[in-house]
Amino acid sequence: MPGFDLTVYKGSSDGKIVKTTTHKDTLGHDEVLIKVTHAGLCGTDQHYRTANIVLGHEGIGVVQQVGSQVTTFKVGERAGWGYLHESCMHCDECLNGNEIHCLERHMYGSAEQDQGAFASHAVWKAPFLFHIPDALDSASAAPLMCAGATVFNAMYTHGLRSTDRVGIVGVGGLGHLAIQFAAKMGCEVVVFSGTENKKEEAKALGASEFYATKGVDKLDIGRPVKHLYVTTSILPDWNLYLPVLAPNASIYPLTVAMGDLTIPYMALVENGLRIQGGICPSRGTHVKMLRFAAFHGIKPISQTFPLTVEGIEEAMEKLDKGQMRYRAVLVAEN
Amino acid sequence: MPGFDLTVYKGSSDGKIVKTTTHKDTLGHDEVLIKVTHAGLCGTDQHYRTANIVLGHEGIGVVQQVGSQVTTFKVGERAGWGYLHESCMHCDECLNGNEIHCLERHMYGSAEQDQGAFASHAVWKAPFLFHIPDALDSASAAPLMCAGATVFNAMYTHGLRSTDRVGIVGVGGLGHLAIQFAAKMGCEVVVFSGTENKKEEAKALGASEFYATKGVDKLDIGRPVKHLYVTTSILPDWNLYLPVLAPNASIYPLTVAMGDLTIPYMALVENGLRIQGGICPSRGTHVKMLRFAAFHGIKPISQTFPLTVEGIEEAMEKLDKGQMRYRAVLVAEN
Repeated sequence: MPGFDLTVYKGSSDGKIVKTTTHKDTLGHDEVLIKVTHAGLCGTDQHYRTANIVLGHEGIGVVQQVGSQVTTFKVGERAGWGYLHESCMHCDECLNGNEIHCLERHMYGSAEQDQGAFASHAVWKAPFLFHIPDALDSASAAPLMCAGATVFNAMYTHGLRSTDRVGIVGVGGLGHLAIQFAAKMGCEVVVFSGTENKKEEAKALGASEFYATKGVDKLDIGRPVKHLYVTTSILPDWNLYLPVLAPNASIYPLTVAMGDLTIPYMALVENGLRIQGGICPSRGTHVKMLRFAAFHGIKPISQTFPLTVEGIEEAMEKLDKGQMRYRAVLVAEN
Repeated sequence: MPGFDLTVYKGSSDGKIVKTTTHKDTLGHDEVLIKVTHAGLCGTDQHYRTANIVLGHEGIGVVQQVGSQVTTFKVGERAGWGYLHESCMHCDECLNGNEIHCLERHMYGSAEQDQGAFASHAVWKAPFLFHIPDALDSASAAPLMCAGATVFNAMYTHGLRSTDRVGIVGVGGLGHLAIQFAAKMGCEVVVFSGTENKKEEAKALGASEFYATKGVDKLDIGRPVKHLYVTTSILPDWNLYLPVLAPNASIYPLTVAMGDLTIPYMALVENGLRIQGGICPSRGTHVKMLRFAAFHGIKPISQTFPLTVEGIEEAMEKLDKGQMRYRAVLVAEN
């Protein structure tokens, strides 16, 4: 087995993207070497921009080499990966296949492992890679690996039913996928966005109703929603949304933000509300997400940038300014 | 059908308990007249002490008369009631039998209806009354109608399993019942209380472990808990409890308190935590609670007071000072 070079793009203390190349002589018996072709940019990458780790966790590529015991992937096949843990194999969550929630292992391609998606190549153990359905092109598949997986997980794992009326707060990287998933599941989809700007696009994606919230004190949406998916980059004013929740409704804050969550308490108790945290799904749920997206033609709307230092920085700046519609995909140049 | 007198005990603006008597000439065709024999005192009654409504929602009594179409209760049988709604019969929750969470109807025996449990008699529609299993004496049954129902509902409705390790925060009216229910369900029961004072009693009720929390910065409980039932009269310091929660754990704040719930946000997202609000159960769950308590001999530890103005005020003051062990039951004098 020949050795290979890995070129990766890391964060750094001053926020510059740093490109480095290392050489590896061997591939482990259970590992797969992938040439990255596409990588989605997630809001979380902005949070890690000043950390010395390889960025990116929405990776799609083509298998270049497989370890001696790998039977699930062949050279030339496509493979993808998301924000996954290794199993620790001794806590209840890992034993139940929910290794994403075991906090004993690293949560991210680390600098040592050089396994982020902003790279020329990546090395992963085969069980942490996903086959990409033929119906999904690689540029569309990339944002599904974290953004799609996160919203699908909240819907699939916590009991959304097709007869439910759901609310989606925010039309961005996560929100525009959440609209599609919920609509294809058969739900009434009520979308809340700051202004009317994204109304037509939200409707085209599957929104049955659209409400602009900027400067609004009281929302009048008729029948209340049973599930509220919050996909904005900061948490919303709960006083605006509590009155549109049905009794026993669930709130899924999918925002990544520091600080506290603060919510009027008795509304929670009296209405039997549930606040359900969560990030990415278990591997079994991730596979269902890919199948469902492929079957229904659920695809992100994205803008592409070259997978270079300049391309990453340009995409990050655009995301930072709130100008991305709706997800950036970095595309390898060769 | 003869008329009858109803003597009731209400709150009032200065916090005095006011006794009034009214006469009713008729009983509706679907109504039941109950002579109250026992009534539990709940923390919620303290909150309503300055309101002009009949207090008490943990009532047990003996049927005196039944309306012309009532077939489910006979004169001389025992009947009990809790904190229940009438169904509105047009919202999803009512249609699914979860009328407790329909907010269109009153949540409490109102002044107009004179149906609180602090009374000589009460009138309820038959479907809102429960039969009391023979194995439960009336004094033991009373605190089950709200305190018991609330903790059982959180456990039964939201997926507690016998193999789960659970935490109970606070050993009071709700907590001392929560310990018994969880232990009889087969769970490992980890109890958190301010001091060691209640340790022996908690163990006798079924606690497998007990931790005093006053002045403690960090809890070391070994294997983390999957469900945390918070039964204290004020919400706790979440920073103390978050580290003892398993990934994907649930928190049930059963406290009744004004203001906001504030909790570190990313811990919720990264650990997949669920915060589940709720109060009393649907009628079907309430019946299961009574059966389970009767089968396992789950009984409150209570102190009795006469069902008089003086008795109510004495019990309320004791509860206010945190001296109740663990629930007050008001007993009719004749």
